[in-house]
Amino acid sequence: WRVGYPEVIFCSGKTVEQVKAIVKAMLEREANILATRASEDLFEEIRKICPAAVYSSLARAFTIKRKALEVSSGYIALVTAGTSDLPVAEEAAVTAELFGNRVERIVDVGVAGIHRLFYNLEAIRGARVVIVVAGMEGALPSVVGGLVDKPVIAVPTSVGYGASFNGLSALLAMLNSCASGVCVVNIDNGYGAGYLAGMINRL
Amino acid sequence: WRVGYPEVIFCSGKTVEQVKAIVKAMLEREANILATRASEDLFEEIRKICPAAVYSSLARAFTIKRKALEVSSGYIALVTAGTSDLPVAEEAAVTAELFGNRVERIVDVGVAGIHRLFYNLEAIRGARVVIVVAGMEGALPSVVGGLVDKPVIAVPTSVGYGASFNGLSALLAMLNSCASGVCVVNIDNGYGAGYLAGMINRL
Amino acid sequence: WRVGYPEVIFCSGKTVEQVKAIVKAMLEREANILATRASEDLFEEIRKICPAAVYSSLARAFTIKRKALEVSSGYIALVTAGTSDLPVAEEAAVTAELFGNRVERIVDVGVAGIHRLFYNLEAIRGARVVIVVAGMEGALPSVVGGLVDKPVIAVPTSVGYGASFNGLSALLAMLNSCASGVCVVNIDNGYGAGYLAGMINRL
Amino acid sequence: WRVGYPEVIFCSGKTVEQVKAIVKAMLEREANILATRASEDLFEEIRKICPAAVYSSLARAFTIKRKALEVSSGYIALVTAGTSDLPVAEEAAVTAELFGNRVERIVDVGVAGIHRLFYNLEAIRGARVVIVVAGMEGALPSVVGGLVDKPVIAVPTSVGYGASFNGLSALLAMLNSCASGVCVVNIDNGYGAGYLAGMINRL
Amino acid sequence: WRVGYPEVIFCSGKTVEQVKAIVKAMLEREANILATRASEDLFEEIRKICPAAVYSSLARAFTIKRKALEVSSGYIALVTAGTSDLPVAEEAAVTAELFGNRVERIVDVGVAGIHRLFYNLEAIRGARVVIVVAGMEGALPSVVGGLVDKPVIAVPTSVGYGASFNGLSALLAMLNSCASGVCVVNIDNGYGAGYLAGMINRL
Amino acid sequence: WRVGYPEVIFCSGKTVEQVKAIVKAMLEREANILATRASEDLFEEIRKICPAAVYSSLARAFTIKRKALEVSSGYIALVTAGTSDLPVAEEAAVTAELFGNRVERIVDVGVAGIHRLFYNLEAIRGARVVIVVAGMEGALPSVVGGLVDKPVIAVPTSVGYGASFNGLSALLAMLNSCASGVCVVNIDNGYGAGYLAGMINRL
Amino acid sequence: WRVGYPEVIFCSGKTVEQVKAIVKAMLEREANILATRASEDLFEEIRKICPAAVYSSLARAFTIKRKALEVSSGYIALVTAGTSDLPVAEEAAVTAELFGNRVERIVDVGVAGIHRLFYNLEAIRGARVVIVVAGMEGALPSVVGGLVDKPVIAVPTSVGYGASFNGLSALLAMLNSCASGVCVVNIDNGYGAGYLAGMINRL
Amino acid sequence: WRVGYPEVIFCSGKTVEQVKAIVKAMLEREANILATRASEDLFEEIRKICPAAVYSSLARAFTIKRKALEVSSGYIALVTAGTSDLPVAEEAAVTAELFGNRVERIVDVGVAGIHRLFYNLEAIRGARVVIVVAGMEGALPSVVGGLVDKPVIAVPTSVGYGASFNGLSALLAMLNSCASGVCVVNIDNGYGAGYLAGMINRL
Ligand SMILES: Nc1ncnc2c1ncn2[C@@H]1O[C@H](COP(=O)(O)O)[C@@H](O)[C@H]1O
Ligand SMILES: Nc1ncnc2c1ncn2[C@@H]1O[C@H](COP(=O)(O)O)[C@@H](O)[C@H]1O
Ligand SMILES: Nc1ncnc2c1ncn2[C@@H]1O[C@H](COP(=O)(O)O)[C@@H](O)[C@H]1O
Ligand SMILES: Nc1ncnc2c1ncn2[C@@H]1O[C@H](COP(=O)(O)O)[C@@H](O)[C@H]1O
Ligand SMILES: [Mg+2]
Ligand SMILES: [Mg+2]
Ligand SMILES: [Mg+2]
Ligand SMILES: [Mg+2]
Ligand SMILES: [Mg+2]
Ligand SMILES: [Mg+2]
Ligand SMILES: [Mg+2]
Ligand SMILES: [Mg+2]
Repeated sequence: WRVGYPEVIFCSGKTVEQVKAIVKAMLEREANILATRASEDLFEEIRKICPAAVYSSLARAFTIKRKALEVSSGYIALVTAGTSDLPVAEEAAVTAELFGNRVERIVDVGVAGIHRLFYNLEAIRGARVVIVVAGMEGALPSVVGGLVDKPVIAVPTSVGYGASFNGLSALLAMLNSCASGVCVVNIDNGYGAGYLAGMINRL
Repeated sequence: WRVGYPEVIFCSGKTVEQVKAIVKAMLEREANILATRASEDLFEEIRKICPAAVYSSLARAFTIKRKALEVSSGYIALVTAGTSDLPVAEEAAVTAELFGNRVERIVDVGVAGIHRLFYNLEAIRGARVVIVVAGMEGALPSVVGGLVDKPVIAVPTSVGYGASFNGLSALLAMLNSCASGVCVVNIDNGYGAGYLAGMINRL
Repeated sequence: WRVGYPEVIFCSGKTVEQVKAIVKAMLEREANILATRASEDLFEEIRKICPAAVYSSLARAFTIKRKALEVSSGYIALVTAGTSDLPVAEEAAVTAELFGNRVERIVDVGVAGIHRLFYNLEAIRGARVVIVVAGMEGALPSVVGGLVDKPVIAVPTSVGYGASFNGLSALLAMLNSCASGVCVVNIDNGYGAGYLAGMINRL
Repeated sequence: WRVGYPEVIFCSGKTVEQVKAIVKAMLEREANILATRASEDLFEEIRKICPAAVYSSLARAFTIKRKALEVSSGYIALVTAGTSDLPVAEEAAVTAELFGNRVERIVDVGVAGIHRLFYNLEAIRGARVVIVVAGMEGALPSVVGGLVDKPVIAVPTSVGYGASFNGLSALLAMLNSCASGVCVVNIDNGYGAGYLAGMINRL
Repeated sequence: WRVGYPEVIFCSGKTVEQVKAIVKAMLEREANILATRASEDLFEEIRKICPAAVYSSLARAFTIKRKALEVSSGYIALVTAGTSDLPVAEEAAVTAELFGNRVERIVDVGVAGIHRLFYNLEAIRGARVVIVVAGMEGALPSVVGGLVDKPVIAVPTSVGYGASFNGLSALLAMLNSCASGVCVVNIDNGYGAGYLAGMINRL
Repeated sequence: WRVGYPEVIFCSGKTVEQVKAIVKAMLEREANILATRASEDLFEEIRKICPAAVYSSLARAFTIKRKALEVSSGYIALVTAGTSDLPVAEEAAVTAELFGNRVERIVDVGVAGIHRLFYNLEAIRGARVVIVVAGMEGALPSVVGGLVDKPVIAVPTSVGYGASFNGLSALLAMLNSCASGVCVVNIDNGYGAGYLAGMINRL
Repeated sequence: WRVGYPEVIFCSGKTVEQVKAIVKAMLEREANILATRASEDLFEEIRKICPAAVYSSLARAFTIKRKALEVSSGYIALVTAGTSDLPVAEEAAVTAELFGNRVERIVDVGVAGIHRLFYNLEAIRGARVVIVVAGMEGALPSVVGGLVDKPVIAVPTSVGYGASFNGLSALLAMLNSCASGVCVVNIDNGYGAGYLAGMINRL
Repeated sequence: WRVGYPEVIFCSGKTVEQVKAIVKAMLEREANILATRASEDLFEEIRKICPAAVYSSLARAFTIKRKALEVSSGYIALVTAGTSDLPVAEEAAVTAELFGNRVERIVDVGVAGIHRLFYNLEAIRGARVVIVVAGMEGALPSVVGGLVDKPVIAVPTSVGYGASFNGLSALLAMLNSCASGVCVVNIDNGYGAGYLAGMINRL
């Protein structure tokens, strides 16, 4: 492991005391720290023991940067279908950035208004790897995958209602993508997409 | 019911004798006849009692035209994602045509190669109503729905494997379409789409 | 797009501030505005910046009418199975009406007391297009579809318990309708049905 | 157990030899015999050891009547939605009849052509108990249940395709019936419905 | 309909004002009244307009008796697997009793301690019809069905956790019962079972 | 590994050549050999290279015994609900026996005729561990688990039709058993149950 | 039953008064008492009537020990994948210990950091029976089962999000384990695993 | 697109004539050709029009190489759990190799015998990207993902029976992997994994 390489805490289902203890232990080491699924209240407690911690309320994550990783020259294109998909996308962004990657955000380019996607095609095609975040019918990764000759990491979100079945519909659509070069992570798993994209970007 | 208005037989799960009997009874009346899910073998038997019957092997349907309905001035755009979706699409076409509708076929414009869709946009936009047939991730109706200001009837097909779950994936995607003006019929239900589109086209 | 043609906001999962900002931007343009899935609290905030806004608590939607669309001569029949289906039906009605359609409401005609449906048959048959809203076993669209020679848009609702699986039972029933001319939208998607019915009604 | 009360064999998954052995053992006793899910080939073998056996190819069942049960005065109404539901309905009829019940068959009265149901209402209302057999959207039991003040046994069939999911759609619809007095048996379980209806009829 | 025959309100998803209005209208007629899925708060409001109303907190139902139906001579055996199944069972009991049936309750005889069932076998066998209420693995109706020569109405409950999937496990088990004479109603549908059992009991 | 301890081949999805090669390699060692999911045709080929091989057509398995394991003093009770469950049960028996266990078979004691179970209770209670094989509603393991103070291994089978969903119904029932001391293996996994029971029996 | 052998209460869905009454009745007998799924508030009420009661907040269970069972010489290895699985594991531990078993806890050895599992292999191999608790992908029991020649009881937990479907993913994985000697209990069923492991350990 | 870059045919659901026509058209261009899901019979027909075609019966694919792509310096590690997963793995290998990648195969290292995985760890760690193919419980990608600091593409296979639900179990497990850096493609989608791995390897 390289110096500074982040350590990660998944806060969901952990008490404030448990997260605090983990953070304290990590602070004894040199690593940067990323904590996902963290409420604002939890963060307030952490700030007391580590004033350098920074919170992203959109991503519901906090980071503690101690020694920045060198930023990659290539970048990750992070493409989002709608406004409600932003929290998942931002979790991916925070993750990828802390791991030393440059991230270009292209938001609100869902397939119902596909011209917006085309306006942004150059930015997407210039990336080394693309993350596409979408809920409901989950069609965007297939469209992007057909337009771009780069690995596409599809992130289904639980956005929707009724037959979206909390993201199952988007997940299935993405697994069945007719475009080559598309892979899928778990529903709402922005962290996983950001981590994997960073790994690929820095190859 | 107007004179000539077709009567329909769904052959699946009926014996040759049963279909023959139904056809004979219908021939006593004046209606045109449409029989769907008909094997070639079944058709050969029918031709013996009605040489005027015509078989479409792609649609797996036969028709007996006796008095053509006046053809509509407006038309139905019938959009197909891939080659394997053609049988379902053709079932829709045969149905709509027998009910007196003009049908424009736009084939092989799936989202993995979306430029092909754009080449055909004028033909689609000129229709009164659009049928979109797609399997796998079922993304095409959302894209078309976003580009066109006409009713879109989405037909999921059982094309695919694995997590397509015999068309469930496409069905769910279409039900969750983020585009306005999209409705859905049963998996592989070309007949239902053709019938409904004809009804709307002739309003 | 014609002048006055409504713009739509889907409020679910948006903060008050986000909706306010969208409304303000829309008010700079000339369009009518429809906002669905809006709580009463959210509406109170919007009224402060736009006193002309009108709230339907049944539909959980608000509208801002600036230049009424010419009302259609034909009408949409909006048929509802039970009392609990009314909110979804009313979302459809508010949508269709803002888009310039006449809507006839026929309520409480579920299949358990089917004589009520027959009393209202003339009103349903007179429409250009029919919306049928039902939960639980979702049988009503099939019955209506068999009685009426017009396009039927079926809307499953999440009304029920146990094996209704939040509307899945009704959804599946509607997709398998044995009546011709029936299509389906997502569970509880009154907006989608109202929009599509309006589109068909104004063809 | 009364003399002559039938013994039942469920042939599915049994070899010819196994069924033969069971029949032979039963013949040593006085009971009537019912065998369901029996192929024509299997029956031919049975006829060799018991020429009195009678096969119903529609029901795919054979019976061996030795001492007829006294026939009930009240009767069972057996209502069927479509032609493809007939085999399941006939399994119910054969069962109920062998158990000494009078059965009135009312066929082909599915909800898509509901006037046919009304023509037959007197026959249905005159029964002590009603069996309703339907596939696809499974709407018929709810309609019948609303029209009749008698116990209704709903039998979903695997008739349909796509989102009928081999009878699941009909099953769920029937479980969610908004009509009071409706209960459900397994998909395609004509035997179970016939047996239960007989039990109720002879109370 | 006979005089006094109950009218039923399903309160779930209705406002206090709506239920009040329905009760008031019903009070103008002569019928007894049954309201299911009614909270204690709702009942307090009803009592203000009808002091004769009686609440069962276990069944979560209230009744307004005005002219008692003659009580049946035969009775319904109401068999319950565990303590947590009691609310559903009591909904069945309240329903059946208001419709003029005698109900014998046999509680806590789940299959894990099957000797308790045998102690009560006489009481069960003496009934004209049996209701069996069970959650989790839903095995009790099959055992009872094998021991008793009467119609068995199985009611799956949502009792359990994990792979009980809110009653789906019990529902499927009951639908697949290897005992003859068993039918099933919706998960937690005590009302439906009580109504149907009453209908059969009074045949 | 002790001398003679069996090596196992799962033949499903392997070619004759592949199984032959594996058997040949195993014959070079000293172990006994068990091959499950083996067709009769496959066995005929194996017999050519190893005449000592023995086939069980019921279990669809063959064994090659070279040095018998010492047989356990305690025994496994193997309880089967119906005739169609026998192949799965026999796979368990063949497995357990080859691994040196004594197996007592108690067949055809399904819950629809529960008295047969009670006749055999002593044999079941005398075992160190019990395997219970059942399809359809999968109720038997709960009943046995309530009567016996020994570990119960429940094996769901794919026996049934309709809502048995190829064993899913039985599987869910067994996972939700209200009896303590019950665990579950995969649908139709006789091998797994036999292996585990043997392990427990020989502790 | 031996003296002191524990009696068990499943508190979920019981009122404080109901649990109090059960405890009081049990205190009249000599047995030890175990109550699972008990909130801290419930426990406070119980302590008032039985000061000897002891609460485990991690296991959400309380015990009343009156006469300790002799502790087993062999022990149960209790293996946990992650921190969030601890409550389920501790429910198993409390259960097994009250039933007189020695339990060795091996925590936080999930497959993502599999070296930790190897550090603890001796402790696991020394046990007579192994419980493995894991959520998410549920891979740990298969890995342990491959390394250890002892019965493995796999407990899926509802830990995870998205496509974990509240433990379904882990449950399915465990049922499909390619390792021999693995069985499964219900999702989050620590009690069931602890009871069964104790039974096996004390054979 | 670079010269020689392969064109791909998915043969499933295409007739011999259709595939022949596509191949002929492709032969007019310069690209290499890959056809997946091709039966041996189909290949025999293709060889008649293109003797240079090469068939892999394990992968069920044929290739037509015309101008080899320069082979990558880095390589893809292709890890397979069991023998039955080989066809899917080989489809991935054939794909990746035709696209100019070096592939190292590491077979039969499923988690039930995890030591075999450790023997091969160096080969896996040396790759730029790893494909892991597994059915049944789908645990292998999580274990590999925890041991390797490279992107892992997980391919669930339909290998298994019962609760494997044709690969669903493995798919869900892989989506819920607790290891970072793992993504998933469709069940049995060797092609998709090979294509994506190649894309990443050649970045
Ligand atoms: N109730 C609703 N259900 C589904 N879609 C809706 C609903 N209301 C609005 N929409 C769609 O949501 C779009 C606006 O989404 P947004 O930009 O997220 O506010 C509209 O153009 C409609 O297509
Ligand atoms: N078609 C059927 N569907 C469900 N259960 C049946 C059917 N036919 C017979 N049975 C039941 O199967 C039992 C006989 O099963 P068996 O002993 O396996 O032949 C009968 O007593 C009936 O309870
Ligand atoms: N607990 C219940 N579960 C299912 N259906 C019920 C229940 N209680 C009442 N019903 C039905 O609901 C009808 C009244 O519905 P509503 O008109 O919406 O109040 C009654 O006639 C019954 O058929
Ligand atoms: N956490 C648990 N999960 C499943 N079953 C349990 C649990 N705790 C106790 N039980 C079972 O529930 C029975 C007591 O149930 P009850 O009589 O409803 O309190 C015990 O005998 C156990 O079989
Ligand atoms: Mg691409
Ligand atoms: Mg549109
Ligand atoms: Mg119609
Ligand atoms: Mg009725
Ligand atoms: Mg019985
Ligand atoms: Mg026990
Ligand atoms: Mg092992
Ligand atoms: Mg890794």
